[in-house]
Amino acid sequence: MRTLASEVKNSLGGEVELKGWVHRIRELGGISFVVLRDRSGQVQLVIQGKADFALESVIEVKGPVRANEKAPGGVEVGADAIKLLAAAAPELPIPVNQDPDKINLDALLDNRMISIRIPKLRSVFSVQSTIVGAFAEHLRGRGFTEIKTSKLIGSGTEGGTGLFTVDYFDTKVFLAQSPQFYKQAMVSSGMERVFEIGMAYRAEKHDTPRHLNEYVSLDVEMAFIEDDRDLMDLERGILKHVFARVAAANAADLEAWGAGVPSAEQVDRIPVVAYDEAKEIISAQGGRKVFDINPEGERLLCDWARDKHGIEAAFVNAFPRKHRPFYAFPDGQKTQSFDLLFRGLEITTGGRRINEHAMMLEALPKFGLTPEGLGAYMDIFKYGCPPHGGFAIGLERLTQKILGLSNVKEASLFPRDRKRVKP
Amino acid sequence: MRTLASEVKNSLGGEVELKGWVHRIRELGGISFVVLRDRSGQVQLVIQGKADFALESVIEVKGPVRANEKAPGGVEVGADAIKLLAAAAPELPIPVNQDPDKINLDALLDNRMISIRIPKLRSVFSVQSTIVGAFAEHLRGRGFTEIKTSKLIGSGTEGGTGLFTVDYFDTKVFLAQSPQFYKQAMVSSGMERVFEIGMAYRAEKHDTPRHLNEYVSLDVEMAFIEDDRDLMDLERGILKHVFARVAAANAADLEAWGAGVPSAEQVDRIPVVAYDEAKEIISAQGGRKVFDINPEGERLLCDWARDKHGIEAAFVNAFPRKHRPFYAFPDGQKTQSFDLLFRGLEITTGGRRINEHAMMLEALPKFGLTPEGLGAYMDIFKYGCPPHGGFAIGLERLTQKILGLSNVKEASLFPRDRKRVKP
Repeated sequence: MRTLASEVKNSLGGEVELKGWVHRIRELGGISFVVLRDRSGQVQLVIQGKADFALESVIEVKGPVRANEKAPGGVEVGADAIKLLAAAAPELPIPVNQDPDKINLDALLDNRMISIRIPKLRSVFSVQSTIVGAFAEHLRGRGFTEIKTSKLIGSGTEGGTGLFTVDYFDTKVFLAQSPQFYKQAMVSSGMERVFEIGMAYRAEKHDTPRHLNEYVSLDVEMAFIEDDRDLMDLERGILKHVFARVAAANAADLEAWGAGVPSAEQVDRIPVVAYDEAKEIISAQGGRKVFDINPEGERLLCDWARDKHGIEAAFVNAFPRKHRPFYAFPDGQKTQSFDLLFRGLEITTGGRRINEHAMMLEALPKFGLTPEGLGAYMDIFKYGCPPHGGFAIGLERLTQKILGLSNVKEASLFPRDRKRVKP
Repeated sequence: MRTLASEVKNSLGGEVELKGWVHRIRELGGISFVVLRDRSGQVQLVIQGKADFALESVIEVKGPVRANEKAPGGVEVGADAIKLLAAAAPELPIPVNQDPDKINLDALLDNRMISIRIPKLRSVFSVQSTIVGAFAEHLRGRGFTEIKTSKLIGSGTEGGTGLFTVDYFDTKVFLAQSPQFYKQAMVSSGMERVFEIGMAYRAEKHDTPRHLNEYVSLDVEMAFIEDDRDLMDLERGILKHVFARVAAANAADLEAWGAGVPSAEQVDRIPVVAYDEAKEIISAQGGRKVFDINPEGERLLCDWARDKHGIEAAFVNAFPRKHRPFYAFPDGQKTQSFDLLFRGLEITTGGRRINEHAMMLEALPKFGLTPEGLGAYMDIFKYGCPPHGGFAIGLERLTQKILGLSNVKEASLFPRDRKRVKP
């Protein structure tokens, strides 16, 4: 019966059987101290003589558990019997048991099959798993249905330039930029409240620390809202739950990154700032008048929110119509739409959508669109669609900002950028 | 404060505010009986005079709740005040309030934005949402980490013919057929236990009731197994949990489809039949010697299991090496691999994988492969990979078989086949 590394301390004075990876070997006066790594953590083994296996080999060990103040966790296991389950080649392409901060990001990503063994890097994805689970859990608890919609779309309504093309038998299709139309269709079907966790694709050429060409979009859409404040309230609820779950499940991971999550009380304090007001704040913060909110502006606004509201985040709403997609619900020259900036980065875009057929018909020509060009999407509105709206959270960006990673690619297991399609 | 249709009965004698879709209108002697539909169900409204809105319009209603034995659910709401939230065009492309069995599948899928409003069809995806949630819940409870891996792959190792090609900037990439390599990478990283819920793509030309070109794959991979029986045990545990959750959360949906889920005790009785033995059973059942297990054979074997073991399902294992991918763990001329057949259809393929580098190097030439051609995948085995295995459940197939749908496309919100890329 296998014992996990994290549970060894419960067997003090008894015998355990361990399985895991050889993380570290230190030889000292005829004795080898081996650190064994498994999914739960690490534990020290004591071997008489030399350790005749390479780092990263997978072994099975049986032996007594003894107290040792100097060992990590205060216990060690005497390796009476060792079985080699899988030998590792002696020279690793990159070190697994050293601080990954000393290795450049390209080397880590080029050797992803190995770098992901580095506990600190692997912990990013333990946190990410918690985020995904908490997101779904919160929404299920509020009557939302999880949907899975096609990523192969027959027409590229939301702007053809940012789309990847797929050879699909005798025709061409596109990889979806978002499940926008589909989640609206499900809301208008009577499902009312839906969420989707799925890939989104952007064929954008820029290679920055904030962009991925393939990312996980946490999408939400809800019927019978009054205005975009209902959506921001929903997102606050999601974030509070996600942060609480991460704090509880990933305390050691947060510590490894020197990171923390905002409290529920802080999330309640996230200010809602109208676009025009946000520009004024940014202008004042930066000492220079701005005419749009660029990445530097996002950072300045979050600095302001930290100083003024005690939380490094801000909702920006009331975006001008020309800055938002055709389906954004108009409010004069503005729209009922919002972004959420968190720790200097936009992690959400959302808003109320046009739901009335007549209003949609009026909006389309302003964006150079026709009802025919939108195909079946128009059926949603033609046959009775309730007031609704939604938003999408970028999973990798949220992960990045929770942990304080310098590049969003660090929060993607196998990131895709303009040059990187392997491994 | 809105009341859901399913909760109206709790407000007998009081007033309620309802929001939803006009599902049915019946006029009788100066009174209109309107069935209002929302995400929770349906409730009857009583309107003095004519209902001046079309079917599928979205309305808000206020009025008193009265007992009425003849109304569905035993209550009705007097519509004192009605507000039209969104008008529907008068002629629906397909009827929403009639039995969908009378409409052919192509018409339902061509008009998916509307057909998904049909409560019985929408219920398929309520069940599917429960399946997805229960799958994740069970695995999280057993120490599994949820991962999200790229669907854009730089090389097509698992057989180039079945792959869709994507124009990716100045190069070509493929849509992933499965997350196989990535989930193995994560297992070998020390994460040990992973699952992924994601899209899988097969560029196969056949158009059958059992195939989709894009489907949701419920993938599992686990380290430190003894043999493929550990994997079958894990799948039994998943299925028991999924079936229990569906029975609890979707009782009305199951009833609408005249369907039921197996009990935990039945799942425990699913037989494990070796491939050679399965062929003998199928030959005896069909009265004709078979040399492979085709779809008809899958049905016959499930019939046999139903009669003999009281559950219409069977694990088939010990497949010959030539029938399985190169990474299947060999056992003489056989492999430690399995399929799960459920109600006449293969819903799972899985097995133990080769984990030792030397064994992998020996296997590759048998399949015409080279270590160089496999690229970074070989690093998994070169640097210490534990014994492991896993499987994938086709979400749409499982949904189909739980509900008794005649075509797997009915279990996909926006199915993709050779001809269908819209809506």
